[in-house]
Amino acid sequence: MDKIVSLCKRRGFIFQTAEIYGGMQGIYDYGPLGVELANNIKRAWWESMIYQRDDIEGLDSSILGSQNIFAQSGHEDTFTDPLIDCKDCKFRMRADTLDEMKCPNCGSTNLTEPRDFNLMFKTNIGPVDDGSSIAYLRPETAQHIFINFKNVLDSTSRTLPFGIAQIGKAFRNEITARNFIFRKREFEQMEMEYFVEPKDDEKFHEYWIKERMKWWLDQGLNEENLEIFNVPKEELSHYSKATADIMYKFPHGTEELEGIANRTDFDLGSHTKSQEEFNIQAKTKENKTSKAKLAFQDKISNKWLVPYVIEPSAGVERAFLAILNDAYKEEDLKN
Amino acid sequence: MDKIVSLCKRRGFIFQTAEIYGGMQGIYDYGPLGVELANNIKRAWWESMIYQRDDIEGLDSSILGSQNIFAQSGHEDTFTDPLIDCKDCKFRMRADTLDEMKCPNCGSTNLTEPRDFNLMFKTNIGPVDDGSSIAYLRPETAQHIFINFKNVLDSTSRTLPFGIAQIGKAFRNEITARNFIFRKREFEQMEMEYFVEPKDDEKFHEYWIKERMKWWLDQGLNEENLEIFNVPKEELSHYSKATADIMYKFPHGTEELEGIANRTDFDLGSHTKSQEEFNIQAKTKENKTSKAKLAFQDKISNKWLVPYVIEPSAGVERAFLAILNDAYKEEDLKN
Repeated sequence: MDKIVSLCKRRGFIFQTAEIYGGMQGIYDYGPLGVELANNIKRAWWESMIYQRDDIEGLDSSILGSQNIFAQSGHEDTFTDPLIDCKDCKFRMRADTLDEMKCPNCGSTNLTEPRDFNLMFKTNIGPVDDGSSIAYLRPETAQHIFINFKNVLDSTSRTLPFGIAQIGKAFRNEITARNFIFRKREFEQMEMEYFVEPKDDEKFHEYWIKERMKWWLDQGLNEENLEIFNVPKEELSHYSKATADIMYKFPHGTEELEGIANRTDFDLGSHTKSQEEFNIQAKTKENKTSKAKLAFQDKISNKWLVPYVIEPSAGVERAFLAILNDAYKEEDLKN
Repeated sequence: MDKIVSLCKRRGFIFQTAEIYGGMQGIYDYGPLGVELANNIKRAWWESMIYQRDDIEGLDSSILGSQNIFAQSGHEDTFTDPLIDCKDCKFRMRADTLDEMKCPNCGSTNLTEPRDFNLMFKTNIGPVDDGSSIAYLRPETAQHIFINFKNVLDSTSRTLPFGIAQIGKAFRNEITARNFIFRKREFEQMEMEYFVEPKDDEKFHEYWIKERMKWWLDQGLNEENLEIFNVPKEELSHYSKATADIMYKFPHGTEELEGIANRTDFDLGSHTKSQEEFNIQAKTKENKTSKAKLAFQDKISNKWLVPYVIEPSAGVERAFLAILNDAYKEEDLKN
């Protein structure tokens, strides 16, 4: 990994942000070659989703999101990591990454109990700073897709199944950012939400796992470095019925390159008004503020249903790192 | 304008963000057609800057920026609007947009004195919230170009004149966002910083005004809707020696589409270490924290100099609105 980091800086692929001021941890800039590689990855994904198919629409939403979006999505309550303080040296760390209950900075065992630390970046919109104006930097691009479900449906006349795709930045205030660009605080996602009839969810989950694996191979990644990992039930995110991760042998270990999740009707069900009118399967928070039905009316039966969602979600930086890693070779040049 | 706003929503060009929760003022999402038009604009700009020339490098930096970047750039001190409160109804407004000293909400003349309101969005990075971790959402993409000057120079071996171009989001916490997507709180810039020898600044300023006007005409904008406005000395930004705006006849009035500024050696001079070693012309803040010389060494004379900067800076949303406006026609279809 050290060799790739050094190559990235020397050749103008990746620089640490604000390096001249000591650097910002977990935040990076793409240099002249980096921006071209990242753009190529994004363009290849967009082409495969939007231009080579005719069942997916594009979207490019804001990064800022109002508080009620992330209250309803569950992020305000559950998008947290367990945080521990060292009482001696004040170092802060993630409880779940400690091998033994010992401060990695000073070695002290005098630690606080773990408490929930929310990973969303918070800011205020408008000149009034009284709590009414709280906004978050989106922790995933997906929520802005869900809240635009009706807008896209109304402007395109789609029927199920269909998808909405988006490429854009997301932000997570990691307690400890690490492994170069693998886990950044500001990163870029390529996400597609594919809306299906509830009865078809497992079929399309299988379908998208295969499609996405094929895409990664089409990008030229070495098949030996890729594998599918079915996430165990107890490790699933709060919205997921099943998730398959496409794993890549990164220099620092085999880790997730892309996740393909069956998000059920959790998200549309969380953001829709009149929740009681639909037979929502997921356990959602009561929604008293939404002004729109995020549901689909079958044109033959006239019945309304909240679609299930299959989500392939990939990280631009992880694709970038995998492609660089696959391409990295050392050659002995005589003379 | 109302007709364009309504068309944009109906056809899937632009939706207000979080419309289902009442909307976020001054923040918008691109729908399926909008994202394609915006991408076409950005691609045309990138091609003209990066691929059709060989003196400009690309960059894609982070949105988050550390406090010292914007302390040195002058944004912490001067990037403000004058804010007034109505003491009766608590409405807040920009002092410089009031026609008479009267609250536009309730009509009261019982107003506070104007005070400075900083337009940068603020957040905190990392788990410690003690002031040491303050970060801003960049109010322009330009500063991240300046602080990467040495990184780009070292990885590409450029000589003067050369440019660094970047497309990306910027954020301004406007007191009153208005005119649809013309003045947004979250928007996208296409900025290029062109580094020249100090003696050549006026020549290249003229050059880029012509180049950029030509580009807008190449995009198909109607020449009658475009004009050049030389910003009067007393209205110039704190960093500018001279600025020419390319103005467009928007539905709500003739306003700036792109600004081409002579930023002198203000920015590199503000961010460089060892300021006293260079003959910096601009009035810069003393810099005690920078770790890099943002200067150029002439390979023949071996002399170091801080380049001047010519900056063409255009807004994606304004291009979008101008193109839609130019293309909008109403036709009477008989029968």
